[in-house]
Amino acid sequence: MRILVTNDDGIHAPGLRALAEAVEDLGTVHVVAPAVERSAVGHAITLFEPLWIERMHDGDKELGVAVSGTPADCVKLAIQALLPEPPDLVLSGINRGANTGTNVLYSGTVSAATEGTILGIPSIAISIASFEFRDYEPSIWVARELVRDLREHGLPRGTLLNVNMPPLPRGEIRGVRYTRQGRARYVENFIERTDPRNRTYYWMEGEKEDRPEPPGSDETAVAEGFISICPIHYDLTDWAMLRSMEGRFAELGGVPAPDLPPSAP
Amino acid sequence: MRILVTNDDGIHAPGLRALAEAVEDLGTVHVVAPAVERSAVGHAITLFEPLWIERMHDGDKELGVAVSGTPADCVKLAIQALLPEPPDLVLSGINRGANTGTNVLYSGTVSAATEGTILGIPSIAISIASFEFRDYEPSIWVARELVRDLREHGLPRGTLLNVNMPPLPRGEIRGVRYTRQGRARYVENFIERTDPRNRTYYWMEGEKEDRPEPPGSDETAVAEGFISICPIHYDLTDWAMLRSMEGRFAELGGVPAPDLPPSAP
Repeated sequence: MRILVTNDDGIHAPGLRALAEAVEDLGTVHVVAPAVERSAVGHAITLFEPLWIERMHDGDKELGVAVSGTPADCVKLAIQALLPEPPDLVLSGINRGANTGTNVLYSGTVSAATEGTILGIPSIAISIASFEFRDYEPSIWVARELVRDLREHGLPRGTLLNVNMPPLPRGEIRGVRYTRQGRARYVENFIERTDPRNRTYYWMEGEKEDRPEPPGSDETAVAEGFISICPIHYDLTDWAMLRSMEGRFAELGGVPAPDLPPSAP
Repeated sequence: MRILVTNDDGIHAPGLRALAEAVEDLGTVHVVAPAVERSAVGHAITLFEPLWIERMHDGDKELGVAVSGTPADCVKLAIQALLPEPPDLVLSGINRGANTGTNVLYSGTVSAATEGTILGIPSIAISIASFEFRDYEPSIWVARELVRDLREHGLPRGTLLNVNMPPLPRGEIRGVRYTRQGRARYVENFIERTDPRNRTYYWMEGEKEDRPEPPGSDETAVAEGFISICPIHYDLTDWAMLRSMEGRFAELGGVPAPDLPPSAP
């Protein structure tokens, strides 16, 4: 089994190392990750600059390939140029900080796994819902179990798993919940400053908003001490809205799509 | 009516100007857009650098505010710091190049509209499925009709419209189709080069893949000469997979979410 390990915290992040080591005995591990932290870059890819690579070592041991681009770049480049054969699995993480609710959209960690899925490879993103918690043992346990399960059962084409760990030692974790993407989001505040040349600039700072979560959300599961496993995909179609659009925008000469499946996903 | 106009091709793009002018008489237009082209940056936001702004003029006329960040940054900054009041509508475009199928994930144009939606503002992304076609008249007509419609009927909270125009003069457009996100994707090829310092680098180039589209796809509609209006949202939950997960990952102590709605979207 060939496993591609990547992240968005960068090639030097301890979470990346922990994840790569966690699955070392389950297959051949290739690490290809951003050279520097690329958090919150979403599904950005690099079109207008070249991608530099650097093979990183710790003494004699090859740690992996550092790439000057984004997490999605890393996965594309690894699969389509660097690896001798496509991997059987893409693992992204272990991210510092939750990737629940709306944050999934901004997450480089999740986007790397999404990119793997687009390229037809079963993929998992793993995050810990804390910026301080440094005990990777529970995440490693979960990563290993998921890899074993996927090796046996696979994933539907187009689906990836977005896993969030509560910041708890293994003995205190209450189990797994299969979850939906919740509503959690950060609300930004912009701090206005003036530079020495009298130009205005802004720092974005965000604070997690306290808002009600829908039943079964990823955010709630983690907050209650469960591992959240949320299956996600990249079909953004709003089917409920699509089914109710007939007659809208009549001025434009609306022609309903001829053969929409009546009970699409 | 206050309308925020943005894009990912940058503040100097003719498509942005065309869109802003198109809706000028329908309300108060605020233009806040990236200072330079930021295509394919997806939903990236800028956390580790400040955002510079510059008020741009053409003679005495204020063209808008150029921001050093991404399209999603522009929308956040505009709504939460620059505009006196939140807008009633976010328009993103008119983008050069289709944002159909998988490309939606990489699109800064769509992400700007998604960000508007996250912040609770009805939002529309408009793209022309061509890099060469320069006749904005049909897109302007569609933008105006959509703005009028939304003013009257609104959009469900959490839904945005992803509009793609065929590169045709208005008289040759066959009408509107309400579509689903298709499968269209680019397949990348990486060109390996060596710099004068003997370091390896790669240029990403992509080619649109010829693959079968599902019925009712955005890609097919545009290819057949229709305007594609695809309602999208940012709930990435794969509900079909979620409903079938019971019993998976049993080693981890699976506890199904207690009260998942039986017929979730």
